[in-house]
Amino acid sequence: MNKKSGAAKDVKGSQGLDELLELEAKYCSWGDTVHYVDKPNIFKRGDGSFLYDRDDTEYLDLQMWYSAVNFGYRNERLNNALKAQIDRLPQLACQYLHEEKIALATKLAERAEMTFGEKGRIHFNVGGSTAVEDSLKLVRNHTGRSLMFAFMGGYHGRTLAVSAITSSFRYREKFGHFGDRALFVPFPYCFRCPYEKKRDSCSLYCLKQFEKLFETEYYGIVDRKTNVCEFSAFYIETIQGTGGYIIPPRDYFAKLKEILDRHNILLVDDEIQMGFFRTGKFWAIEHFNVTPDIMVFGKALTNGLNAISGIWAKEKLISPKVFPPGSTHSTFSSNPLGTAVGLETIKLIEESDFAVSVPKKGQYLISRFRDLQKRYPEIGDVDGLGLAIRVEMCQKDGFTPNRELTDAIENIGLGGKLTAGGKKRGLILDIGGYYKNAFTLAPSLYITQKEMDLGVDLFEEALSIALKKA
Amino acid sequence: MNKKSGAAKDVKGSQGLDELLELEAKYCSWGDTVHYVDKPNIFKRGDGSFLYDRDDTEYLDLQMWYSAVNFGYRNERLNNALKAQIDRLPQLACQYLHEEKIALATKLAERAEMTFGEKGRIHFNVGGSTAVEDSLKLVRNHTGRSLMFAFMGGYHGRTLAVSAITSSFRYREKFGHFGDRALFVPFPYCFRCPYEKKRDSCSLYCLKQFEKLFETEYYGIVDRKTNVCEFSAFYIETIQGTGGYIIPPRDYFAKLKEILDRHNILLVDDEIQMGFFRTGKFWAIEHFNVTPDIMVFGKALTNGLNAISGIWAKEKLISPKVFPPGSTHSTFSSNPLGTAVGLETIKLIEESDFAVSVPKKGQYLISRFRDLQKRYPEIGDVDGLGLAIRVEMCQKDGFTPNRELTDAIENIGLGGKLTAGGKKRGLILDIGGYYKNAFTLAPSLYITQKEMDLGVDLFEEALSIALKKA
Amino acid sequence: MNKKSGAAKDVKGSQGLDELLELEAKYCSWGDTVHYVDKPNIFKRGDGSFLYDRDDTEYLDLQMWYSAVNFGYRNERLNNALKAQIDRLPQLACQYLHEEKIALATKLAERAEMTFGEKGRIHFNVGGSTAVEDSLKLVRNHTGRSLMFAFMGGYHGRTLAVSAITSSFRYREKFGHFGDRALFVPFPYCFRCPYEKKRDSCSLYCLKQFEKLFETEYYGIVDRKTNVCEFSAFYIETIQGTGGYIIPPRDYFAKLKEILDRHNILLVDDEIQMGFFRTGKFWAIEHFNVTPDIMVFGKALTNGLNAISGIWAKEKLISPKVFPPGSTHSTFSSNPLGTAVGLETIKLIEESDFAVSVPKKGQYLISRFRDLQKRYPEIGDVDGLGLAIRVEMCQKDGFTPNRELTDAIENIGLGGKLTAGGKKRGLILDIGGYYKNAFTLAPSLYITQKEMDLGVDLFEEALSIALKKA
Amino acid sequence: MNKKSGAAKDVKGSQGLDELLELEAKYCSWGDTVHYVDKPNIFKRGDGSFLYDRDDTEYLDLQMWYSAVNFGYRNERLNNALKAQIDRLPQLACQYLHEEKIALATKLAERAEMTFGEKGRIHFNVGGSTAVEDSLKLVRNHTGRSLMFAFMGGYHGRTLAVSAITSSFRYREKFGHFGDRALFVPFPYCFRCPYEKKRDSCSLYCLKQFEKLFETEYYGIVDRKTNVCEFSAFYIETIQGTGGYIIPPRDYFAKLKEILDRHNILLVDDEIQMGFFRTGKFWAIEHFNVTPDIMVFGKALTNGLNAISGIWAKEKLISPKVFPPGSTHSTFSSNPLGTAVGLETIKLIEESDFAVSVPKKGQYLISRFRDLQKRYPEIGDVDGLGLAIRVEMCQKDGFTPNRELTDAIENIGLGGKLTAGGKKRGLILDIGGYYKNAFTLAPSLYITQKEMDLGVDLFEEALSIALKKA
Repeated sequence: MNKKSGAAKDVKGSQGLDELLELEAKYCSWGDTVHYVDKPNIFKRGDGSFLYDRDDTEYLDLQMWYSAVNFGYRNERLNNALKAQIDRLPQLACQYLHEEKIALATKLAERAEMTFGEKGRIHFNVGGSTAVEDSLKLVRNHTGRSLMFAFMGGYHGRTLAVSAITSSFRYREKFGHFGDRALFVPFPYCFRCPYEKKRDSCSLYCLKQFEKLFETEYYGIVDRKTNVCEFSAFYIETIQGTGGYIIPPRDYFAKLKEILDRHNILLVDDEIQMGFFRTGKFWAIEHFNVTPDIMVFGKALTNGLNAISGIWAKEKLISPKVFPPGSTHSTFSSNPLGTAVGLETIKLIEESDFAVSVPKKGQYLISRFRDLQKRYPEIGDVDGLGLAIRVEMCQKDGFTPNRELTDAIENIGLGGKLTAGGKKRGLILDIGGYYKNAFTLAPSLYITQKEMDLGVDLFEEALSIALKKA
Repeated sequence: MNKKSGAAKDVKGSQGLDELLELEAKYCSWGDTVHYVDKPNIFKRGDGSFLYDRDDTEYLDLQMWYSAVNFGYRNERLNNALKAQIDRLPQLACQYLHEEKIALATKLAERAEMTFGEKGRIHFNVGGSTAVEDSLKLVRNHTGRSLMFAFMGGYHGRTLAVSAITSSFRYREKFGHFGDRALFVPFPYCFRCPYEKKRDSCSLYCLKQFEKLFETEYYGIVDRKTNVCEFSAFYIETIQGTGGYIIPPRDYFAKLKEILDRHNILLVDDEIQMGFFRTGKFWAIEHFNVTPDIMVFGKALTNGLNAISGIWAKEKLISPKVFPPGSTHSTFSSNPLGTAVGLETIKLIEESDFAVSVPKKGQYLISRFRDLQKRYPEIGDVDGLGLAIRVEMCQKDGFTPNRELTDAIENIGLGGKLTAGGKKRGLILDIGGYYKNAFTLAPSLYITQKEMDLGVDLFEEALSIALKKA
Repeated sequence: MNKKSGAAKDVKGSQGLDELLELEAKYCSWGDTVHYVDKPNIFKRGDGSFLYDRDDTEYLDLQMWYSAVNFGYRNERLNNALKAQIDRLPQLACQYLHEEKIALATKLAERAEMTFGEKGRIHFNVGGSTAVEDSLKLVRNHTGRSLMFAFMGGYHGRTLAVSAITSSFRYREKFGHFGDRALFVPFPYCFRCPYEKKRDSCSLYCLKQFEKLFETEYYGIVDRKTNVCEFSAFYIETIQGTGGYIIPPRDYFAKLKEILDRHNILLVDDEIQMGFFRTGKFWAIEHFNVTPDIMVFGKALTNGLNAISGIWAKEKLISPKVFPPGSTHSTFSSNPLGTAVGLETIKLIEESDFAVSVPKKGQYLISRFRDLQKRYPEIGDVDGLGLAIRVEMCQKDGFTPNRELTDAIENIGLGGKLTAGGKKRGLILDIGGYYKNAFTLAPSLYITQKEMDLGVDLFEEALSIALKKA
Repeated sequence: MNKKSGAAKDVKGSQGLDELLELEAKYCSWGDTVHYVDKPNIFKRGDGSFLYDRDDTEYLDLQMWYSAVNFGYRNERLNNALKAQIDRLPQLACQYLHEEKIALATKLAERAEMTFGEKGRIHFNVGGSTAVEDSLKLVRNHTGRSLMFAFMGGYHGRTLAVSAITSSFRYREKFGHFGDRALFVPFPYCFRCPYEKKRDSCSLYCLKQFEKLFETEYYGIVDRKTNVCEFSAFYIETIQGTGGYIIPPRDYFAKLKEILDRHNILLVDDEIQMGFFRTGKFWAIEHFNVTPDIMVFGKALTNGLNAISGIWAKEKLISPKVFPPGSTHSTFSSNPLGTAVGLETIKLIEESDFAVSVPKKGQYLISRFRDLQKRYPEIGDVDGLGLAIRVEMCQKDGFTPNRELTDAIENIGLGGKLTAGGKKRGLILDIGGYYKNAFTLAPSLYITQKEMDLGVDLFEEALSIALKKA
């Protein structure tokens, strides 16, 4: 079939927006999240903190591919690393080795050992979900059990097995029976405490409730005689991503880990969205004074270039004795383009001052939004860690979730007709939260103060318009 | 943590092989397939049909990343397409659109419509397994049932849900209970007919055995009154990949589809390894005169550059009505680097004569191996379709599987000390087959006659050495 | 093999206790609950409220086969009904009809219709677990979903599927993966409120916590858009049996049902232990002003003679249209011996004044135990409904569970050497409760005041001895 | 609620057939197998080999509650044993002991030890399915794996877990996902060989096909390196019951056991229908020279009086060390009425000559049906073992299954208007077989030659009438 297909042959470049959207409506699956908005944006170009559409309208991006592009669009250094690898060894079956893979694994494992004082190994894969799948394999192999704890509001991906530990039922609803569905535990979401406690007086009541589950066999969790638990690991995001960038109390996870250790339950820390200095530390969990048994990472490791993900696991879980050759496999698992970029990312991090600059920028941005909050009661909560920042939109009472307002602001931003900063611009925001009313801000780690100011101004403009319309 | 880590800091380039392998042994998981051989090769460079190790020894590659690099290592046109995209829009969250995604989906769907006369849509993902996961979601959503038929010897990937439809028990053994384990049906592997029939007189006895399962409810498959079947889809590779590049009778799948249609069982065709002209046609299933309900593809679409995979499905299975926005999601699902390369791949295919050249090359290579077979009784079977070619190694009887010999030849090839063609060279072969005794040859579609001759000579040299050692 | 087996041939009657226990230790499985005590009792005779061992020592029974023998051991009327059926039609395959089956179903369904104002049907089986299995079939058929809510502390039986909705993990621990494990919800156990609230001020906080789960999809329970819930039914015991005869607030279940109805979740009421006037009403749920969708019953229906169990379900769940012939089957499901006794039980009930006498007796017995409580701080809680009475044993603080004391009292009672009432006697008590520290008293509904007084005296004697020993 | 319910109060005895059937249609679930025939029979009395309806019409019963009443309706000796126990100890909670339980377990275990040379223990339950559940618990506990092999055409009961190992999909169809569905293997049904072989030349080809599954890991069954198998036990009925009383080759099971032993797969022998001399031996498996790892029994142990079932298992599977107190439980598991009858049954067997008389009677009855076969080509197959006899009804070709004819004969028999033997009589037949075209004859073991002659005459009469009508 060498004949060129008609409509498609000259697709790129020459067509109008409507024509493109028509083709998209005809030939593309709508099963992904594109059509959450009415008329999807088509972007053509990216640079630093900005995306540009076909008319070259500039959009300030405050979500950066939900934290996959921590180091800015078209980061020259990382792009060049990719190009160099393209010219050298762009492809290699993952049953053979290449140096970048070894170097990257070495750097990541050495860092983990320095941070946590634990020997471990790295296993690569492609895409976050499949790395979570690999972690499930380690857990199931080690414990012989397949049921997991995970958090309400937690998100770990959407393969079938991972959908079982991702809280939202909507992700499972159409797809039959999930025999490994996790037991979902309330997350310490203090702005909306599941137990209506106050943070300053709660004494981590939520953790006590969790601890109580182990008190008798009749809570259905543990055999007190054998101390065998029905659940083999607890999957956490230290800062929930899709859940709305919720920051838990600093002493929460260390105390959780104590409970888990008493019952030989593993702690698996999903750093896919929060790793690589999003929160001002290499791993988000470093804020919480706890050593996970397994860490899962992805996204920003390659700055959104060639997808590469992976897990770090303690030696006892992943040594060749217990996880021997052939235990798993994936064609693109340690693809050389990805490892080369990943290696450059780590070097870039080593040479940067993100540990200082990110918290500083985060504090500034939070303070700007808290200023806004004083003037707009609809901003119910502003919180953050490093440059992972949440802005939760509410009714005038500052508490009742306001999804409509949130959607309106997002749509106005994507409309590209804001004027703050003196020219027609757009603002790209991502929405998360249990009530789909929280902006989850994840700007470039290189964002400038000027850009932050612009962001807040654009946000305020969009908010004002939305409030007027309502 | 800005301090550079010691051992890793200068990893690349400067270290000796032993030092690198030591780091690998310490920090890398061995869970993948790297350590199937005793001392893994480290490759440094690739070009066309060849890979080069750190000493610049040249290895002729007859497996091309198990068919992911159909268009040769460092294919300039595809590399350039990737670089251009890196310079333009290397990153974009998959909830927004970019033109290359639409163009690629359009081309693939239009081609499917021309080939099969069926409207359908494309859904992208990253990595073959996750595309298979997406197909499982469509099947489970459409049928409300989660059990599948699949083939003995079949391979569809290694996520947990996909391991349940991949035949080898070893892939499930360590990982607990699989509540969706497929029912595995014998594949028409005529060289080793599961029923010991002869191809010329069997009248597809294997299919009759399958058809018989629907005859009464007591075979445990179907309710004859309601015609509801316990199994909702049949997952196939038309040519089994890992199973050993087995070529089934040409009338097999059309007759299978008739049986499935009578019971509303979907046919899902996994083209991850055989698509994109590996067999001399765009899709391998085009040889078999049958329209699948879903097709899954990956690997060669981007020639092993940015991983992108996908499914094509009939409109009724994937239209927004039944598979609406939010049904699934993956961060890197339609990443712009991948779609840009994929689009260029399709254009390259459109402008090439693979439909003519691939079968011709395949016939030549098969004929050369069949000549060898006459002289070496240990070559039990040589068969192929296009440039997917199998060479099954046996004992002197030409039938009893000989895994040791197969391993020996592979290791000799990877040793890089063959001399056929007048200089020190290596030969890269991949092993598949139920008994791990089949070479699964997947050379570059651009392989020259000279390279094919070289390949056969290197193979014979390795075979001779192996036979002498034994 | 007609040869008589040696040791066994004269087993009955002639052997000493030790010899019998030796045979038991050799040939009987110990997997049941016999060996919870050190030296199991062998009983030889029963009469009214009493059992007699091989030495004819009399034991007052305050558990009556955990409420299976509500109408007293060797109840003459029911025994005679059984004997009459033995002489008439003792056996009949359940695919044919006999009058007693129809009569019994009619009486039960008519009564349910009068009580609840709902048409329904009766499906019989043999043994409580299999009736629960039948209810699961109705639920799964009606809803298309297999996950259930059930209570922490709840007990519904021990077949594999029913173990999945029975809270104690110990019942599942040895038996691999349970893909249908229920989500266990805290029961309103006010003496030990899971949330440490006080009953008079809690406003049913526990129910609010349950209701909250439906507030967003991120709690993992419901899709707010479609109102489809991942869980299809809630299995309850209104008074938990094994859980320790816990009496919930009277308004609890009506409010629970409101929540369930809003989300189309069925309520399945397990009356196996509490039905047939144990609580002073025909069904325990009649105390709670709520109509279940399905009821399950068993045990006392035949007063512990031929096991027969069953379910009542609303017409829409069980009509032949949705649950047609052949949907399920069990050899002994409506065995004529069982239905004949069951029919006589219902007649006996109709002619009795249990609705008056049982509450009266219950109040007397509770008051007697509360008197004891004043003198013994180790009695932490005394509560009851009808003749289902709980006595929870604690440390001196009246709260910390005291399993050792509870076990000691039970063993002293079973020792048969108490002297209260002027002769050597035993006392039979059953232990339940989350901490195995609650006596679950279920005396004969015909128990006399004298027997109740004797029971309390024997209990106090055993308690005193136990306290002295400690 | 002491008020007598209206319609039901005088149900028994006084009502006409139509009135009873009306109540049945209103209040009884139709989910069981009653309504397989158009107008269900109501029986009132039984005696020896006969049942009697409300008009006292006599029906010769050739199915005896599908082999639950091996010793005849209203067997005086067994009835008296039951009555004696009613007068002594009719009820006892199963956590206490009674002598009859110990005696019965001792007799069964001693006999198994004499027969198989293996120590083992007995665990009782109530109803066949729950005993099969107990065997699943032993298997899952011992092997840590939950998937089973079972036979196509096999039937083990209808609880959810047992439905997963019972072949017919119809039994699972309505009830959601079965995560433990067995792998069903073709049974050696030589009259309709699944592979179309001839018995005299097949060399057990079917077993070789099964054995082949273990040859490579790619058949999805076993890891050849570790010899771990995905399936932990093979559930068999030596003579398939519901499957149509199919008699396999005598050397089949010993050879199957060899294969299973090589891979540590347990053999569980379901004797629920064929045990207790139905086939002329105590256990049917004694014909096949093989020792099972677990046996399951039920039905005829109590001659259809109080349901009691059980398992015998090898010591290593069931000793208190591996299956300790509390591993399982069921209220009625070793109820004293059942054990007393069971004990008497064993004594009756010990004093009888069934080992001689049953085969003799069986041969006579088979020979009579084979005589019929010569005259009626519609009788395709007559075969049997002891008094388990199959008569398979076909088209005139003697092979094509003829369900209509089978149904017609059954209905004519149940119509009660046959005249063979000189008075108006009925004939009770049970239908089984994969095509529902096999009469599964299980007459009383006490059937007389005269009754057998009458049975054949009634059968011929019904067959003639049916053939005329067709």
